[in-house]
Formats: sequence, structure tokens, C-alpha cells
Amino acid sequence: MSPEFFPFLAAGEAGGFDTILLALVATIAATKLFGELAQRIGQPAVLGELLAGVALGGSVLAVLDPTAPVLHAFAELGVLILLFEIGLHTDLRALQRVGSTALTVGVVGVALPFGAGILVARALGLDLMPSIVAGAALTATSIGISARVLSDLGQLKTPEGQVVIGAAVLDDVVGLVILSVVASLVAGAELSLGGVLSTAAPAIGFVIVAIALGSVAIPPLFRLVEHIQVTGALGVIALGFALALAWLAARSGSAMIIGAFAAGLILHPTPQRREIERSATQLGYFFVPIFFASVGASVDLAALASREALLVGGALITVGVLGKIAAGFAPWWFRGQKLLVGIAMVPRGEVGLIFAQMGLAAGVLSAANFGALMLMVVVTTFMTPPLLGLVVSRRAAADEESAPDQSGIDDLVVGSNKRRRSRSG
Amino acid sequence: MSPEFFPFLAAGEAGGFDTILLALVATIAATKLFGELAQRIGQPAVLGELLAGVALGGSVLAVLDPTAPVLHAFAELGVLILLFEIGLHTDLRALQRVGSTALTVGVVGVALPFGAGILVARALGLDLMPSIVAGAALTATSIGISARVLSDLGQLKTPEGQVVIGAAVLDDVVGLVILSVVASLVAGAELSLGGVLSTAAPAIGFVIVAIALGSVAIPPLFRLVEHIQVTGALGVIALGFALALAWLAARSGSAMIIGAFAAGLILHPTPQRREIERSATQLGYFFVPIFFASVGASVDLAALASREALLVGGALITVGVLGKIAAGFAPWWFRGQKLLVGIAMVPRGEVGLIFAQMGLAAGVLSAANFGALMLMVVVTTFMTPPLLGLVVSRRAAADEESAPDQSGIDDLVVGSNKRRRSRSG
Repeated sequence: MSPEFFPFLAAGEAGGFDTILLALVATIAATKLFGELAQRIGQPAVLGELLAGVALGGSVLAVLDPTAPVLHAFAELGVLILLFEIGLHTDLRALQRVGSTALTVGVVGVALPFGAGILVARALGLDLMPSIVAGAALTATSIGISARVLSDLGQLKTPEGQVVIGAAVLDDVVGLVILSVVASLVAGAELSLGGVLSTAAPAIGFVIVAIALGSVAIPPLFRLVEHIQVTGALGVIALGFALALAWLAARSGSAMIIGAFAAGLILHPTPQRREIERSATQLGYFFVPIFFASVGASVDLAALASREALLVGGALITVGVLGKIAAGFAPWWFRGQKLLVGIAMVPRGEVGLIFAQMGLAAGVLSAANFGALMLMVVVTTFMTPPLLGLVVSRRAAADEESAPDQSGIDDLVVGSNKRRRSRSG
Repeated sequence: MSPEFFPFLAAGEAGGFDTILLALVATIAATKLFGELAQRIGQPAVLGELLAGVALGGSVLAVLDPTAPVLHAFAELGVLILLFEIGLHTDLRALQRVGSTALTVGVVGVALPFGAGILVARALGLDLMPSIVAGAALTATSIGISARVLSDLGQLKTPEGQVVIGAAVLDDVVGLVILSVVASLVAGAELSLGGVLSTAAPAIGFVIVAIALGSVAIPPLFRLVEHIQVTGALGVIALGFALALAWLAARSGSAMIIGAFAAGLILHPTPQRREIERSATQLGYFFVPIFFASVGASVDLAALASREALLVGGALITVGVLGKIAAGFAPWWFRGQKLLVGIAMVPRGEVGLIFAQMGLAAGVLSAANFGALMLMVVVTTFMTPPLLGLVVSRRAAADEESAPDQSGIDDLVVGSNKRRRSRSG
């Protein structure tokens, strides 16, 4: 056998496609199994998918290597498709209605954990730079995890869900600015207002320009696309548009996931939305769990084990959780459930991991401090699904009227199927 | 900006995800545009997708590099999903009914081009080893291209379509054996019957064992899978099963695409087929065109330009086309349209490219001979869609009764959408 000559036929050729295949099969099997088990014990499926990733990752089975280029690309496409789906489900006007609330939650939810994180780290004896990295790692909510948990619980389209989405998008833009400023501080640069502004302007400007231009230019374009006879073209072209905007966002100094989210927002009011959603949902079933499994697989259990990691980590978790919950209560005029908003903002997920990895790679963080940040990410990510589930079910029990609509459970990732069934039923 | 710290947020990090994103966007846009143009001038969409690949490939725009690991993995998943879809649409009993016909077409279609190819190459002055490689490159029909063209023309479920699928699957198994034998000859090994048999036995045995065991074990398993509450699980788990069987096939010395096809065959009789098809079709819309574009992008236009390449290539094309058409006429008892079967067996596609690349890498083929094989692959692949379209439309004009059902056009890749529409209409 000469497997290296069989790019499309057999195993073992350039890129080790058989290894990739095995990792994909294991990821599909484990995420569906753990996701199902999570649902059976009343937890959102995403919790099971994250745990499946931990089990498959280097700390346990070592089947899923989230840094392998192909799996990494699948995971990135997964989070882009997820944010595209979230955008498709988000009405820009509804988002604008909760605009000042989301802005308040977002700004307070960045400033409080950032400041408190630096203070706590300094109080525990860390140097200034590691303290700044630790504080920065506490800023950005993982919009992917928040949105998925809200969706699993049928809360994505509630006022609380809209506030969280708006605040988390803002968080990502601000977190991006903080990240690049901290990265240049770590690299030894001086802090300057001009530098901060030149980073912030394109990141924020992209969202505004993309949505303004896109809302004018895209609907007529998709009326043309609908005339394409090649079946399935509409959904794939819409996804292509999302990927193009993600690419443009990165090029403009904004975040890819913000570009994909903006693409969904732009396509939300078009008459082709249903068909686009159907296509994105089916692709999401495949790609999105790979993203969550990759986040889980990035967790290095060994790094969590030292006493110093537990001490610093515990302190960071405390200010990280309290800071975000306080942010949920900051907009005093908001009539929705503030605790739900606050808890939904808690998970740091992959964004926190990025800070931790950056600090470790730059030599700013000790192994113990890296472990502390890792612990913070793991705990804030894994505590959110069950805690939010508890808040939602207690609210449902307390007030039958505001109970979550059962047909809305899993309304995002589940998408059209359930809704179609409930309509026909 | 420190883009290397943003695995999920921005561009430029390990693996060059922004380059991948750009290649995906370009591939989506070009395949849909060229596919639509092909359909508008009465050609199957796959012809446009192949041409889009040529335009995006190294010969012209150099946007799509089919050897880049991530794009390569997407293309491989594309052909696996395509073969899975074809298997899902194939009734094993219908395939068995045309068994002897398909067997005859397959065997004659391998033996004739192989023998005639060697003779013609020798007559044109090539040495023995390059002649054997050239003959071997003529053996295997590209089942992916044949099936997609038949599907585009609504001919996949006709007796002719079933014969072609059966013969092409056989071709792939035999072609795999020839490939590994020729590869060891090229590497300097002695030819032995024992060596040939030890290659052939697992390749053929896998298909029989997989289908026999799978048909018993899988339907009860999927009755269990249907109880999973996580939505979308069924389709993704079915795809996971197809990928697992593809992996097993490669491990057993058979071909990955044969494993994916066998998975489809096994799931065909289950009551969950419709939902699995819906999911596979949506994923196929995204992945399958990447495969065809990759095949197109593998074409090195410069290699086709020499006079010797044109001469040898022309001779190989002649015996390659006539050999397969003769194979279509070999089962004299078959009452279907033999010309349709023969022409549908003509495209060599990616399998021929593999032989050509193997010969070039091993130093057996001169640049001109490599160009000749490339030319053979390009011409047999690109002549099939229009030629088959002509045969089908002439038959339709001659005999209204046996005309292809319009609602069946694109019945595979288009899948459930059109059929759902036609059923509700």
C-alpha cells in the first residue's frame, strides 16, 4: 500500500486526514453523548459539549488537539456560524431598544472586573504586569457561550437575552482593544492615548459602517441571489457573505466573530431569512459543537493543581463573578430580571484563554498565575449553564406567566426543526 | 495589534485562518457563479464548479491551493459527504438487480483501457513503467463526478444510473488494487500473485463485511439515536457514522469513499433516512463544491502545453473514451441505454490525477508524459457533463415516455428541497 498517493482515496496522506477523521468522529460522538446526558439532568447541552472537549483534550484522552490547523479551522468556522446564527435571530431595532441598558451592562462589566482584578492580584503579591493581564482576562464575556446557554434555555429573544447579546458584543469590541493595548504593554511599549484610540476606532467603526452600508446594499443583492437556479445556493452564499464580513472585520482591526454577527444582523430583515436560517442551522449542528469541544480541550487540568493557582484563581473568580453580576444590576431602570443578565455575562470561555496564553507565551505570567487564569476561565464557563438554568426555572416556577415558552427551548441551535414541528402540531 | 493572540477573534494567527477564510469565500462565490452560468447554458452545475476551480487554482488566480491542509480536508469531507449522499439514495436491492450488468461494465471498463493504454503508450515510444502508469491511470472512473453529473441530469435512479454507480464502485476497488500494485512496481518491487491478492482481499472484503454487519446492527442503533433529545443530533450522528466507516475502510486497505458510500447504503432502508438526507444535503451544499473546485484547481494548465503531451494525451484520451464506451456496450443483455452508461463511465477526475502525481513524484513520468495524463484527466472529466447532457436530451426528445422527470433534476445534490416542493405542489 502507498497511502501517500491517495489524497481522496485512503488514509495517511499529507495532513494526516485519517487522524482528523478520527478526531471528528470522536468529537461528534462525545459531544452528542455528553450533550444528551447534560439535557437529561436538566442542564444546557453546551455544558455537555464543553465537558466532552475536556475528556477528548490533552488532559485526558488526547484525541482532540485544538491547535491542529484543520480542527482549529473547524472550531473557528463553528464560532463564526454560531455568531452568524445569533445575528440572524437578532432584530437590530430590538437591540437598539435595549441599547442604553446593554451599553451600561457592557461598560460596567468591563470596568469593574478589570479594576478589581488588578487590585486583588496586586494585593495577593503579583507584579504590575501580571496583575494587568489578570484584570484584562476578566473583562470580556464569551458571547458564544452566553448566547448558546441562553438559547438552550429559550431565553435568547427575551429582553434579558437581548441585553446580554448587546452587552457581550460591546464587551468583545472593548476586550479586543484592551487585549491589543495589553499585548503592546507586554511587548514593552509605552501606553499612549493615541495608540489606544487608533486601535479602538477601527474596531468600533467597522460595526457601524458594516451595518449601515450592508443594510442598504445587501437586501437588493439577495433578491438577485434568489433568482439563482442552483439549489442550496442561497444558504451557502449567505454563509459566504458572513465569512467575507468576518474576514473584512479582522482586516479592519475588529473581531471576526463581530463580522459574522453583523452579517446575521444585516440579513435578519430580508425575506430570505428563513431559508438562510435553515441552512446555517444544519451547518451549525455539525460545526458549533466542534468549537465548544475545542474550548473544553484547551483546558489544561494539570495547570490548575498548584496551591497558588487555587488561591489567586479563587480570588479572581470572586471578583470576576461579582463584577459581572453587579454589571447586570447597574442599569437600575431596566425592568427585566437583572440577576439573569448578570449571570449570563459571567462566562469568559475562549477569550479568557487567549489572555492567559498570551501572558504565558510572553513570559509575563508564572505557571501558577497561568493556572489561576485557567481556573477562572473553567469555573466561570462551567458555572454559568447550571446557574442560569436554576435562575430561569425558579423564575418559571414563581411566575407562570413569564415562564419560558417550551417551544422556544433550544430556539437557536435547534432552529427550524422544533419550530416547524410546533407549528404543524 | 497582536493578531497571533486571537485564535477565535481575529486574523493572521497560526494556520493563517484569514487566508483559509478568503479561499472559502472565493470558492463559494466562484462555484455558485460558474455553476449557475453552466446551468443557464444547459450544462450540469458540476461543470461550472470544476471550471471555477481551474480559475481559482494555481494556473490562473492562485487563490485556492488544493494541497493546503485545511482546504484539502474540506475537499475530502466534500467527496465523503457526496458518496454518503449517493449511498443514501441507493437501494441495495436495486443495485443487486443490476449486479451482473454493473460487474461486466466495471471489469471491461478497467481491463480494456488498462491494456489498450499500455499498448498505445508503448507504440508511441514510452518505456514499460511509464506505459503501465499511463494504462493504470485510465482504469478508474471518478465516481464522484459521474454520480454528480447523473444527479444534475436526473438520471441517478434510472437503471442506467444504477449500473454506472455499481460499476464505478467496483472500479474504485479494482483501481485501488491496481494503484497499490503499480505503486510497489514503481518503488522497484517484484510483481507477485500473493502480493496482489493480499491487497485485493481486504479492499473487497471490507465492502461485503461492512454492509452485511451494518445492515444487521445499524438500524436498531438508529432507533435508539432517534430518542436523543438534542436537536439535529440524528443527522450529525449519521454523518459521524459515515466518517467512521470511511476511516475503517482506509484502515482495512479499502478506500475512504467506499466506506462513506457503504454507510449510505446501510442507512438507506431506515425510517430515519429522510431526516438524515436533509442534514447531509445541507452540509453537501457547502462541502461538495469545494471538492469539485479542488479537482479543478489541481489542473496544471502549463503541463498541457507541450507537443508530446498533446500527442500522447490525445492517444490516451482516444483509448480511454472508447474503452469505457465499449464497456457500456459489453453487457449485451442490458435493455437500458448503453451509450449513456458508457459515457457516464468516462470521467477519470481526481483518481487519474493521483496516478499522474504518483508517477511524477516517483520519477517514472517525464514532464511531457505527466502533461499527457493531466490532459487525459481534464478532457475526460470536462467532456462528460455536456456529452451526457446531449445523450439525455436526445433520448428525451426521441421518447417522451422515458423522458427524465423534471422534478428529478438535481435529485441528489439538490435533495429534499425540490422534492418537497414538487410533492406539496
